[in-house]
Amino acid sequence: MNHTPLNVALAMGTGVAPRIFPPQRLAQLAPELLLLNHEPMEDFTSPRSQNILANTDILITGWNCRTIDQAVLDAAPRLRYILHAGGTVKHHVTDACWDRGIQVSTAAEVNAIPVAEYTVAMILLANKRILQVARKLHTDKAAVEPDQVFPDMGNYGKRIGIIGASKIGRHVIRLLAAYDLDVVVSDPYLDDAAAAALGVERISLEELVASSDVVSLHAPSLASTENLMHAGLIGTLRPQATFINTSRGELVDQDALLARVQQGDLYAVLDVTTPWVLPPESAFYTHPNVLLTPHLAGSLGTELQRMAASTIDEALRIARGKPLLHALHAKDLAITA
Amino acid sequence: MNHTPLNVALAMGTGVAPRIFPPQRLAQLAPELLLLNHEPMEDFTSPRSQNILANTDILITGWNCRTIDQAVLDAAPRLRYILHAGGTVKHHVTDACWDRGIQVSTAAEVNAIPVAEYTVAMILLANKRILQVARKLHTDKAAVEPDQVFPDMGNYGKRIGIIGASKIGRHVIRLLAAYDLDVVVSDPYLDDAAAAALGVERISLEELVASSDVVSLHAPSLASTENLMHAGLIGTLRPQATFINTSRGELVDQDALLARVQQGDLYAVLDVTTPWVLPPESAFYTHPNVLLTPHLAGSLGTELQRMAASTIDEALRIARGKPLLHALHAKDLAITA
Repeated sequence: MNHTPLNVALAMGTGVAPRIFPPQRLAQLAPELLLLNHEPMEDFTSPRSQNILANTDILITGWNCRTIDQAVLDAAPRLRYILHAGGTVKHHVTDACWDRGIQVSTAAEVNAIPVAEYTVAMILLANKRILQVARKLHTDKAAVEPDQVFPDMGNYGKRIGIIGASKIGRHVIRLLAAYDLDVVVSDPYLDDAAAAALGVERISLEELVASSDVVSLHAPSLASTENLMHAGLIGTLRPQATFINTSRGELVDQDALLARVQQGDLYAVLDVTTPWVLPPESAFYTHPNVLLTPHLAGSLGTELQRMAASTIDEALRIARGKPLLHALHAKDLAITA
Repeated sequence: MNHTPLNVALAMGTGVAPRIFPPQRLAQLAPELLLLNHEPMEDFTSPRSQNILANTDILITGWNCRTIDQAVLDAAPRLRYILHAGGTVKHHVTDACWDRGIQVSTAAEVNAIPVAEYTVAMILLANKRILQVARKLHTDKAAVEPDQVFPDMGNYGKRIGIIGASKIGRHVIRLLAAYDLDVVVSDPYLDDAAAAALGVERISLEELVASSDVVSLHAPSLASTENLMHAGLIGTLRPQATFINTSRGELVDQDALLARVQQGDLYAVLDVTTPWVLPPESAFYTHPNVLLTPHLAGSLGTELQRMAASTIDEALRIARGKPLLHALHAKDLAITA
């Protein structure tokens, strides 16, 4: 146990802290930890920031935190921990941090929860064609016989293909265990034993895409996953299949996806696209077979407090001499988001 | 074990059998049971029907089966079992059946599954305002910051009120256990011990309605539940709450509900209404805070095969001398759908 509390500092973009770290949340750090700044550092170079960094043991970071490079580390001789209240540290944690042996933790595990929940809701909607039938009712304003329009509707006897046994992919698989669905997974880093432990069958990406009623993408955004869903693969999606992307637009050939949707035999649920905000003329906004959402699957609103609670808990574990619960290691970066 | 197979007959409305009992499903009855008619009886009075009834031990019924009254029973001296491939037998099983000691079974338990799944999907959508945000993105065709529009969005820190610990209500509760939601239930027939076994808190209907972010109705349609959600109660729903009805329109004051929706501070997800098909001028079709679906939450499409499999399984249990798995008793009728 430390008798002198360790010092905590906050660093994140403008406007992020009030959403994630309201005063009552930050108050949970005391008395075991001393918070140096209630107003987060938005840069690392100002005299105020330099003064804070000089005394920081634990840096809690949030969205849009500036890059923590060698110069920042030189100004922070006591820094031993970076705890990120977000999904990925790739934008601000540099090799210099890893080289110095700084311990890093993220809220990726808890941030996986809402993304997986969004995915499960979309799978249930898609199998049952709920939004399509609702639209027809809205238009017809008369009796609609759902399974005369969609004879194969239903959350029974359907195959769900999960691309990527990531934190999100695994949580989707866990949640889907409560349903009568045949869940298969494709992941080059998952072996058969690990798949069996998850209770799913591991198959090739090609077989998964060609045989699933719903395909949901949960692979990380890496150089090696760019264009993972290439035009050829998109062409093998089953007629009337649903493709869900909550990962990153870069993993999917956007033009090929749109072309397939416009053929009329594919549904798409897209929480991400490339570019990030589509131009107003994009047909993804208006095609009836597309449900487009503005990157909302991850933690937002009240869910930010789950992320904040996890980060504060991680800081308190340090104060209590416990190991980090969500430690990230440099070697993980190559295969995580 | 029976050495002479018992005789099974089918009775249901026109067009129901091909959807629920395709030939390969009916083939599962053999060799343990003998199916008397592949073409279901659509009435009980024709010479053909009278001939079938005379030899029927087990009657498998489906939607729109004609009333099984004393005259039908008189024509069916061997009849001992009625197995219904649907949710409720109230439309065709009469007191005469109960008086004769006919054993009755329904697919209500398996039919509860899709309704509960629909409900869970709608709860996840509602908490996160997914459809509302998607609509704004569809309209704006520009960047949308979801939690600037809906600061309280999120599937975290929300209370879900389940009215009715029915088969459906209980399955909703089971499925919701996997989420960070505070689930409460109201049911006059549920005691605290049973609520604790379900892992939820039992509170009064009034407290539930006034304190929940999402209120979902799963009470049976009975004389005692008519207008259960009366105007006064609807007035106490929290601002920005979501009300889900997958039960029956008769349980809800339709005018009061619409008026509250039109105030703009209530969302409604309605799979049922009164009247059953709304007139084309009904504002429920078009109000942006309403998601209206045409009674699709129950078994449809592929889900009919889950109901059929359950019914065939029940028939085979009889052939094998096992007790019915989903037996219904006359005393249950007073408090079930």
